[in-house]
Amino acid sequence: MAENKSKNIVWHESRVDRASRNEIFKQSGATLWFTGLSGSGKSTLAFTLEHLLIQKGYNSYVLDGDNIRHGLNNNLGFSDSDREENIRRVGEVSKLFADSGMIVLSSFISPFEKDRHQVRDIHQQDELPFIEVFIDTPIAICEERDPKNLYVKARRGEIKNFTGIDSPYEIPENPELVILPSASPEKSAESIFTYLIDQNILQAID
Amino acid sequence: MAENKSKNIVWHESRVDRASRNEIFKQSGATLWFTGLSGSGKSTLAFTLEHLLIQKGYNSYVLDGDNIRHGLNNNLGFSDSDREENIRRVGEVSKLFADSGMIVLSSFISPFEKDRHQVRDIHQQDELPFIEVFIDTPIAICEERDPKNLYVKARRGEIKNFTGIDSPYEIPENPELVILPSASPEKSAESIFTYLIDQNILQAID
Repeated sequence: MAENKSKNIVWHESRVDRASRNEIFKQSGATLWFTGLSGSGKSTLAFTLEHLLIQKGYNSYVLDGDNIRHGLNNNLGFSDSDREENIRRVGEVSKLFADSGMIVLSSFISPFEKDRHQVRDIHQQDELPFIEVFIDTPIAICEERDPKNLYVKARRGEIKNFTGIDSPYEIPENPELVILPSASPEKSAESIFTYLIDQNILQAID
Repeated sequence: MAENKSKNIVWHESRVDRASRNEIFKQSGATLWFTGLSGSGKSTLAFTLEHLLIQKGYNSYVLDGDNIRHGLNNNLGFSDSDREENIRRVGEVSKLFADSGMIVLSSFISPFEKDRHQVRDIHQQDELPFIEVFIDTPIAICEERDPKNLYVKARRGEIKNFTGIDSPYEIPENPELVILPSASPEKSAESIFTYLIDQNILQAID
């Protein structure tokens, strides 16, 4: 990364400003918010995109249930207010990552428009890009895949308030990107990569 | 950053592993935890170090009250349990940043050994470096500086439970680094940089 070392950085006691950071690292920090049903392929796509970005020389990180529910949000359950607080915290952490210059890939079912809208708001208030990616996989396909056996349990009543079964999933109203199940994760990741270049969130690397 | 593009990355649907990430970005994610009294110079040092690291081609980000209390922790006050939860969440977020490969500089008074120890624990459980940096500025100097006029207010009783006045600061038992007030922020940042190279947290950049 030494090639990116800028001579314009003044070494003093205030925050490195965002423009300098973007110039040095050839990317503008941004949050890509992957929303969709359980089993829709959110995390698969997020991890595929993370690989693609890093392979191409950009920096990216996936936030998902695995690294959030066991840590930051281990004191939250699944009541309505806890689910709301879960998404609120994840939204704030995504914003911190975006502010740090990272392309953060946040993969959460996040079924409620109100919660997603709030996350978008806090990004826009701080002029950080927020890109909502709706993984539009029909529930029939998700239920057929059922990678964690959750739909089976929800149908048996062993899991309550399961999104798509006995709790609603509100379709995103104006997502920046919609991913259809006919596209492979690799093709979808390539499309999103092209979108990020077009939006100037990623600068071309020679 | 294209020069760091690795041919070893297999593009599939699992997390980019930490070793690959470290190799590509020439640094191992780590948390530097700056603890000390209000006015001790924690944040000044953190920002100076952030500048130095970025100037040298490494990636770093400061977490502090400014970007945490107004966002992630805006639903917490200053009761004992809220202060504990404040540090717990900041610790978990630091860990996420360290896991993402960032050198995160967390600057919080964090007066209680128990809370700091918990943050160290969650890092060590996940084999992430945690470096406690004790800013050992005596209270007389902090109070003379009083950059935010907080000591004046605390002495007047307008702020309750103020660390060092009517709430204790527990001296770190085994900090990795101790910073004395006689060292300038620039000199201290240089020392910490050398330490990070020696610890192989930063790899030499040609």
